Amino acid sequence: MIPAMEHFDSLSTPCLMLDRAVLESNCRLMAARMKKLGVRLRPHMKTAKSADVAQLATAGHFGGITVSTLKEAHYFAERGFRDILYAVGFVPSKIGEAAAIQEMGDALILLTDNMGAAAETAIRAAKLGRKFPMMIEIDTGAGRCGLDPVSEADDIVNLGRVIHKSAALELRGVLTHAGQSYHSTSAKGIKAVAEAERAGIVKAAELLRAAGLPCPVVSAGSTPTARHAKNLDGVTEMRPGVYMFGDVDQALIGSCSWDHIAVTVLASVIGHNRRTKRIIVDAGGLAMSKDIGPSEFDNETGYGTAMGEGGTPRPDRMYLAAVSQEHGQLALPGGAEPPWEEFPVGSRIRVFPNHVCMTAAAHDRYHVLDETGSVIEEWDRVNGW
Amino acid sequence: MIPAMEHFDSLSTPCLMLDRAVLESNCRLMAARMKKLGVRLRPHMKTAKSADVAQLATAGHFGGITVSTLKEAHYFAERGFRDILYAVGFVPSKIGEAAAIQEMGDALILLTDNMGAAAETAIRAAKLGRKFPMMIEIDTGAGRCGLDPVSEADDIVNLGRVIHKSAALELRGVLTHAGQSYHSTSAKGIKAVAEAERAGIVKAAELLRAAGLPCPVVSAGSTPTARHAKNLDGVTEMRPGVYMFGDVDQALIGSCSWDHIAVTVLASVIGHNRRTKRIIVDAGGLAMSKDIGPSEFDNETGYGTAMGEGGTPRPDRMYLAAVSQEHGQLALPGGAEPPWEEFPVGSRIRVFPNHVCMTAAAHDRYHVLDETGSVIEEWDRVNGW
Repeated sequence: MIPAMEHFDSLSTPCLMLDRAVLESNCRLMAARMKKLGVRLRPHMKTAKSADVAQLATAGHFGGITVSTLKEAHYFAERGFRDILYAVGFVPSKIGEAAAIQEMGDALILLTDNMGAAAETAIRAAKLGRKFPMMIEIDTGAGRCGLDPVSEADDIVNLGRVIHKSAALELRGVLTHAGQSYHSTSAKGIKAVAEAERAGIVKAAELLRAAGLPCPVVSAGSTPTARHAKNLDGVTEMRPGVYMFGDVDQALIGSCSWDHIAVTVLASVIGHNRRTKRIIVDAGGLAMSKDIGPSEFDNETGYGTAMGEGGTPRPDRMYLAAVSQEHGQLALPGGAEPPWEEFPVGSRIRVFPNHVCMTAAAHDRYHVLDETGSVIEEWDRVNGW
Repeated sequence: MIPAMEHFDSLSTPCLMLDRAVLESNCRLMAARMKKLGVRLRPHMKTAKSADVAQLATAGHFGGITVSTLKEAHYFAERGFRDILYAVGFVPSKIGEAAAIQEMGDALILLTDNMGAAAETAIRAAKLGRKFPMMIEIDTGAGRCGLDPVSEADDIVNLGRVIHKSAALELRGVLTHAGQSYHSTSAKGIKAVAEAERAGIVKAAELLRAAGLPCPVVSAGSTPTARHAKNLDGVTEMRPGVYMFGDVDQALIGSCSWDHIAVTVLASVIGHNRRTKRIIVDAGGLAMSKDIGPSEFDNETGYGTAMGEGGTPRPDRMYLAAVSQEHGQLALPGGAEPPWEEFPVGSRIRVFPNHVCMTAAAHDRYHVLDETGSVIEEWDRVNGW
């Protein structure tokens, strides 16, 4: 484990640090767990957005990945990834971008839950002389996107028929994401969500098959459900993403231990406010994001948790109590006096992100650390759209 | 005014749109107001991070600007800006970056509220054979950074002496930012904050002068206080920034009218969730940010407000009720049925950002619109660190 107080003088702050050994361990554990449960791992790269990380995350599995933007798909296709699922409802106007990615040799898979969008995509793909695999999005309790396998069973079958009949589309299967798993703090609660996710997506697959339609792929997964699922019978692939890095939110819901959080933000102390008892750092709302997800579970988590020795929170539980654009305010719970002497202006501190997908997106690279805490490499990221 | 429902088919979503006429009007009004109040305008470029915008924002004034990162300073220096204030507490370890910017011919001005940081900066600057102008940060009620002109008057004078005595530093003056102005919704309340900001920074300047120290520059400003200040006697420059663009937060506190918000996010409808009564768009937490500042004033503001005709909110007050990484959920207040037919999958909608500084930072460019709603140019941005 990396000592928390290394100064990393060569790095300009704020910046993103990635502990390679922790990342590798997280990837290995998930890959093994998916093997044991008999499913393919199609890691979601929306968190890491890095080809170097994707190499580690796909090791031991079939090499397929999941992305959240077509820009990510393009980036990974350029770097040799050949089986990419774009897991956001497809808009027909994006067909040109999708075709360009397909031309790079990539089997780009599209997603829909909407009859109009599927039909229009088929028309536009045909005009371009293209054929795309397409999956149907199913809602298994998250309440965001997807058709309900009970109340909208007919819609699922009808959508399946339209896709299957189109010469420009290939019905690949069904997909769900149990996003509600992020709001459960007990293993029992997450296990129940995982079973609802599994049962719901298998039910949707059976609807298609009962109607004589193909459904080779049954895709599910979030980091919490992938970690806690008892069995994945009927599921063929899982798409967790945040497990590679971990964050405060995942630690609080028991998806990872603190010392398995691989990404931190390195900040410099830029001031002491003795009146408000706050240590001011140069990691603010942009460097950390304004995601306050963990406040659902703990009132004194703010915008990030200061890292102590051994890759765990400090015994004094110092945290980022407030942020503005480029300023962060470290405080102790209850407004206690912070450790001024330990953190003179110019000293460095590492901060665990609340929600690493949001935090990492503000940074264009990772500073990769080896086991001794030395910065050994820079890995790029693909941001934006 | 641009029609809200133009489809902008040439643009890939989500993306940032900038209404040039509104921007120019916002810049002209602020420049004129600062002239009238007898102060120099040193616009804060942390919001726009764009040289094209900076050209408009500095028009009619002396050309100096304010930045929030050294990367911004470098970007603007490269593009010919020659009087740049880095308005975040300086850390001595950043002296190399600062020196590199100074070498480009730029008069980079540093900021501090800390004796140790100032002394160490002086030592390091001297080693490099450099001399930097430096200002002292003063707290006039925001409670973030800066010394208090009443309870820490001695510290201000002592810090001024250290800076003034150093051959590698030049005491340039005092600086404050009344960030508390963002939390007042009445013109009367903001006027009171503006007067506290003015009186406090002038008091700090007088402390230095009474001690025989120079204090040529007395710098204040936020968008609300610049808009509402009755007089700025004793202040020499103001540093508002967000006025160039405006956002939901500024509209709700009366700093701008809705039709003077220059920046919107263009999103595509990617799904309809009939069960939750939500229209799903491809502008999520990354494209909009997770800043929920306006919830301080209005419970149904969520993560952004849908734009209607004439550059104002829609009569049905549709807003971005929830976001995840790449998904946004548009809803009507009170959970009313949304206008499904008006927004089929694939249609476009523009969304006002809650806090444009945070929203814009996720995007690498502006799509600039003329008065007819045509996209005429792309302007770049400098993000990250």
